[in-house]
Amino acid sequence: MANATAIIITAALVAMAWALLQFLIISRIPVRSEGVSDSTGLVSGTNDEATTRRLSEIYEAIYDGAESFLRAEYTICAWFVALFAIVIFVLVSWGTQWDFARGLFTALSFVLGACTSILSGYLGMKVAVYSNVRTTISAQKSGWKHCFNTAFRAGAVMGFALCGLGIFMLYVTLLAFRVHYPNPEDWIYLTECLTGYGLGGSSIAMFGRVGGGIYTKAADVGADLVGKVVHGIPEDDPRNPATIADNVGDNVGDVAGMGSDLFGSFAESTCAALVLGSSIGISGGWDAMVFPVAVSAVGIFVCLLCSFIATDLRPVRAEKDVEMSLKIQLISTTILMIPAVYGAAEAFLPQEFMLRATVGSEVLTLQPWHAVLCVCMGAVGGLIIGLVTEYYTSHSYKPVRELADSCKTGAATNMIYGIALGYKSAIIPVLVLAIVVYGSFKLGDMYGVSLAAIGFLSNLATGLTIDVYGPVCDNAGGIAEMAELDPYVREKTDALDAAGNTTAAIGKGFAIGSAALVSLALFGAFVTRIRHASEDALFENGVNMLSPVTFSFLIIGGMIPFAFAAMTMKSVGTAAMQMVLEVQRQFDEKPHLLDANPTERPDYDACIQISTKASLKEMVPPGAMVILTPLLTGIFFGVYAVSGLLVGALVAAVQLAVSMSNSGGAWDNAKKYIEKAGPDSELKGKGSDIHKAAVVGDTVGDPFKDTSGPALNIVMKLMAVLSLVFADTFFACNGGAGLFHL
Amino acid sequence: MANATAIIITAALVAMAWALLQFLIISRIPVRSEGVSDSTGLVSGTNDEATTRRLSEIYEAIYDGAESFLRAEYTICAWFVALFAIVIFVLVSWGTQWDFARGLFTALSFVLGACTSILSGYLGMKVAVYSNVRTTISAQKSGWKHCFNTAFRAGAVMGFALCGLGIFMLYVTLLAFRVHYPNPEDWIYLTECLTGYGLGGSSIAMFGRVGGGIYTKAADVGADLVGKVVHGIPEDDPRNPATIADNVGDNVGDVAGMGSDLFGSFAESTCAALVLGSSIGISGGWDAMVFPVAVSAVGIFVCLLCSFIATDLRPVRAEKDVEMSLKIQLISTTILMIPAVYGAAEAFLPQEFMLRATVGSEVLTLQPWHAVLCVCMGAVGGLIIGLVTEYYTSHSYKPVRELADSCKTGAATNMIYGIALGYKSAIIPVLVLAIVVYGSFKLGDMYGVSLAAIGFLSNLATGLTIDVYGPVCDNAGGIAEMAELDPYVREKTDALDAAGNTTAAIGKGFAIGSAALVSLALFGAFVTRIRHASEDALFENGVNMLSPVTFSFLIIGGMIPFAFAAMTMKSVGTAAMQMVLEVQRQFDEKPHLLDANPTERPDYDACIQISTKASLKEMVPPGAMVILTPLLTGIFFGVYAVSGLLVGALVAAVQLAVSMSNSGGAWDNAKKYIEKAGPDSELKGKGSDIHKAAVVGDTVGDPFKDTSGPALNIVMKLMAVLSLVFADTFFACNGGAGLFHL
Repeated sequence: MANATAIIITAALVAMAWALLQFLIISRIPVRSEGVSDSTGLVSGTNDEATTRRLSEIYEAIYDGAESFLRAEYTICAWFVALFAIVIFVLVSWGTQWDFARGLFTALSFVLGACTSILSGYLGMKVAVYSNVRTTISAQKSGWKHCFNTAFRAGAVMGFALCGLGIFMLYVTLLAFRVHYPNPEDWIYLTECLTGYGLGGSSIAMFGRVGGGIYTKAADVGADLVGKVVHGIPEDDPRNPATIADNVGDNVGDVAGMGSDLFGSFAESTCAALVLGSSIGISGGWDAMVFPVAVSAVGIFVCLLCSFIATDLRPVRAEKDVEMSLKIQLISTTILMIPAVYGAAEAFLPQEFMLRATVGSEVLTLQPWHAVLCVCMGAVGGLIIGLVTEYYTSHSYKPVRELADSCKTGAATNMIYGIALGYKSAIIPVLVLAIVVYGSFKLGDMYGVSLAAIGFLSNLATGLTIDVYGPVCDNAGGIAEMAELDPYVREKTDALDAAGNTTAAIGKGFAIGSAALVSLALFGAFVTRIRHASEDALFENGVNMLSPVTFSFLIIGGMIPFAFAAMTMKSVGTAAMQMVLEVQRQFDEKPHLLDANPTERPDYDACIQISTKASLKEMVPPGAMVILTPLLTGIFFGVYAVSGLLVGALVAAVQLAVSMSNSGGAWDNAKKYIEKAGPDSELKGKGSDIHKAAVVGDTVGDPFKDTSGPALNIVMKLMAVLSLVFADTFFACNGGAGLFHL
Repeated sequence: MANATAIIITAALVAMAWALLQFLIISRIPVRSEGVSDSTGLVSGTNDEATTRRLSEIYEAIYDGAESFLRAEYTICAWFVALFAIVIFVLVSWGTQWDFARGLFTALSFVLGACTSILSGYLGMKVAVYSNVRTTISAQKSGWKHCFNTAFRAGAVMGFALCGLGIFMLYVTLLAFRVHYPNPEDWIYLTECLTGYGLGGSSIAMFGRVGGGIYTKAADVGADLVGKVVHGIPEDDPRNPATIADNVGDNVGDVAGMGSDLFGSFAESTCAALVLGSSIGISGGWDAMVFPVAVSAVGIFVCLLCSFIATDLRPVRAEKDVEMSLKIQLISTTILMIPAVYGAAEAFLPQEFMLRATVGSEVLTLQPWHAVLCVCMGAVGGLIIGLVTEYYTSHSYKPVRELADSCKTGAATNMIYGIALGYKSAIIPVLVLAIVVYGSFKLGDMYGVSLAAIGFLSNLATGLTIDVYGPVCDNAGGIAEMAELDPYVREKTDALDAAGNTTAAIGKGFAIGSAALVSLALFGAFVTRIRHASEDALFENGVNMLSPVTFSFLIIGGMIPFAFAAMTMKSVGTAAMQMVLEVQRQFDEKPHLLDANPTERPDYDACIQISTKASLKEMVPPGAMVILTPLLTGIFFGVYAVSGLLVGALVAAVQLAVSMSNSGGAWDNAKKYIEKAGPDSELKGKGSDIHKAAVVGDTVGDPFKDTSGPALNIVMKLMAVLSLVFADTFFACNGGAGLFHL
């Protein structure tokens, strides 16, 4: 038993130590840079007093903006957590015939999950802001290695810290609960209580993603609309009052929001696997039961080893290396996971172990290779989905180039092509998902599906590293522009950012695919829990689609992602319009703001205030819808209604999430492709009508890819984990028929 | 027995006679108009020789274009029908252990259904083209009644002819097959053979909708892009070479395509109801079994009576009456249907009759009021969905006005708001559908659902009348513009068209809602047929979502509508771009084309050729996908896979169809709202930047609302009816496990 615990705790501690080490390396870069000239002959000049002051000013403005937003957001979250913990405690206790221990433990793990998520997000934001300016400074030095490594290490701080912290908190909670449930027969209760951890993680993720997503895109869209379209000033121009808010947005949305999101995925997939595999503990012992956590633990070692490839073994020497270097990270970790998982399975799983089937009365006999195959199917499936996403969103391939071509006939054809591209890009990912679901389900029932989900996320540390790398480079470029550094610095960070965009798209593919599997697994866990609570009276033959209540809620469930997307997109639109009006006001009141050497300073704070207020206000309705729908459905309409709801939401959300993310990514890169093409090409380049058409696409794509699309992941997972946590409560309402007795 | 047959045949004959009468009334309007001056003082001037010649020329150009397109399209369709009839004959015979009678009857009813659909489409097109120019001429007379009535009667010709023909052919086929199956126990075979009729109708509908949809929007988008955006010439300007193609498109897409579509819906819902209710014949006799057809028959009388309200009892006297008059048609027919259905149920249904449940071994005892309630829920549900659609797409209400406001900040916010509006507009329709499904399912099992679907379509004649009315007015306006008639004529037809837009949106709401119910009912019929074929070995406990193969295909099914939308939208984009290039070429080669008094004539034919070729080429891949997917799934992966596929497709298609149609409608009307607002308003009116932003939305909305959106209806129905027709074949493949034995 000591084996699994030892390796899991070790992995968690190593990850945190590694994150700290990366942070220390970054912190050795002084903001007051001396500038260097070296043998390659590139000299970026010494930063004088004024530039240094400017850099510090910008850094602080971004930092303060992010800090104040997160403080406001987390205050709301804290209230929510406190209140909802009480709801959980009461409802779960009631649902379990006043078994207060289960109510308390579930509420407790909810609070722990939520706190870990908040901590991860906050930490990520701090590290990102801290590293942005240092990446800018590294970019002043010649060569690519230095500045790539700085941004990459910034990502690694977040990636490893979050993985380490997540595993550590989850596992310690598990161990603590085991004191109360020492008997393997009772581990089903133990794992059920732990589901609160997943719920906590993903509730915060929801607020983070939605709040942060609205914040960042309101600022971005607002800045773009006024800055680029109306006044023709370049991106990140310091004269545009919305630029600081835009940069703050990158940190609170893309870093803090996404960190919480992926932490939520990890927590939920682990909870689902533990509930579904709780019966394994009886025949296979503790180590076998916590095998899913062990997979994540070995994943940390794999990611850590592979990170040396990027920073030392095969460092970035030229622009073209950047994208390849990041891609190698993803591919190498996926490949290396296969033997690692095999080793873990051999070490912790007995030669044969028993699993109760989710549906029917069968007891399956599994062998370690079943589990290994499930995890590997997930890992490889994730990679394929990621690469397909890249194909559809990178301007190295045909789809985005065609999209860029479509701008020749204006914004309308760009829109039509872009939406069609997004819809089309869902085909292969969905087929891959279907195959993974089918294969893992056949191999290991629903437990197999949950293992596949864990496989998707097994190289989470690397995925997160790359995801954070992107906004750090983006911000570094913004800072370079605002501090009016040598344009050469901006070009460098832009190149780093472009590669980051592509790999971020790959990461999004992973995230969506994993979310689909996680929510299916959570749904399986829900069914398991209801069967357990009803002593097999319900769901014994599975869930019949052709029953009135299930089918009705199936189509209602299918509507939820669309409603959610509508709400979040409109929020971005509304907030962006407020931003445009505010910027317009400033331009009107301060007519010299747009001079080449402006004598007036824009009021950055006013824009930050607008983004903050709008995002906090607008995140409540969609959040409430996602949280209340399954809760009320379960209480009033019963567990068959919930089943329909979850499956309908899953089916619609997968397609919509993939297509929105990819449409958005493709528009962004089509615009970049046109910009890169330059004025002499067929695409005419920046400032032309073709470019203007592309900007419209990019602007529409912003909420697609950074607000609604990624938040849809959370929608499907959160609804499923909520239903899982409150399964006993739903069952207590008229034996699962709901208060309306349908 | 004579009762039901008598009323059904009478209704069919009356409908056809009524259509003929309407046609004769229209034909009394001479194209060579004399012009009138009357007491109201409005004089539109006498059409001189030149104008008359011009009118005839335009009329003939449109007629020839439409005729040549339909001939080309129907040639392809004829080949498809011939080949697919053989496929049906072979596969169905094989599936039924070489019961050649069933194979032959199914193939025969397929051919009949297809021919009826082709005939309806062709007829509709002829009547529409014939009436367009006459509507223009009626608009030259003063007062509104005359020209409204002409367009309305044109719609009525199509509406009643199609309903009459459809019911007549279907019922005669049914009677003919009964000669072979006189025994009520065998009526299940009879109804199963009849499903070919539904398949025939909806295959042609598919090609008509997709082919026609691509045709019309390629021309429309192409004309808009060049005409409005690039050169700033108004809509339907005769100098724009794509205008004739645009007008042809209205006739082949909106009239012929839509006619086939609604005919398909009618045929399928009837087939589904007959299969599901075939067991009723045993206890209730023939009249009880054909009750669904009788409902459609009484619907004809109701629609006929109510049409007098529009043309005579409460004629249109002013612009503001138009919309109300059309709305009254929909509302009055819905209300009057309730007693009519009650009467039909009392007349043809016994006091109690037996129905086998779709799932489980129960035999339900139904009473007439159950059936009446199901039909009425459908009819009222359809009306509610229609009115919600109107709320979201008419510029009399907040959503479209907000959308128009969003154009102030440019095309991007217009896009974001418009897409969000579409997604949001799905909420209430989906909830209504869920309630209708739940209620009718509880009342009468799947048979109840099929009755609700029939209820949705019970006032089909009126719905079609209004749907055809729209494009007729649109075309009339186009002709007025091209023939350079008094602008006052154009204003009048525009007002008629605007009201038609709104009611067309209501009609679309009806169509989508009914499609969802029809495909659910068809799915139920599929399950019934498989149970019958497998002697209850399969599907006895319903369809378990939580089985690997069902769930995998559930998400694959959810992907199909997105893939289909992507293909059709991209086709429109591609064809439109070809059109733009062609028009551009003509402008370049004939520089005097754009002069105020052009000395050169545009080459309309070249544009017609492009639309024709592109649409015929582009309709094949999406069509093939929709037809082959269920077929191959059933043969290779078995009936559980098909179940997942159908339900997944249904869930996704409903949301997508509603949202695409409504986004498109809203963009169109937002643009019209801005145009109406005029240059002095806050919205600046035509030609302003705000208007340009609105035009982008309108252009994107074109394929949304007229190609992809409405075609999605057909996708869900066609996949379901295909599976139903080939159910025995699927069962014959390894006992329903498919050749791959999943």
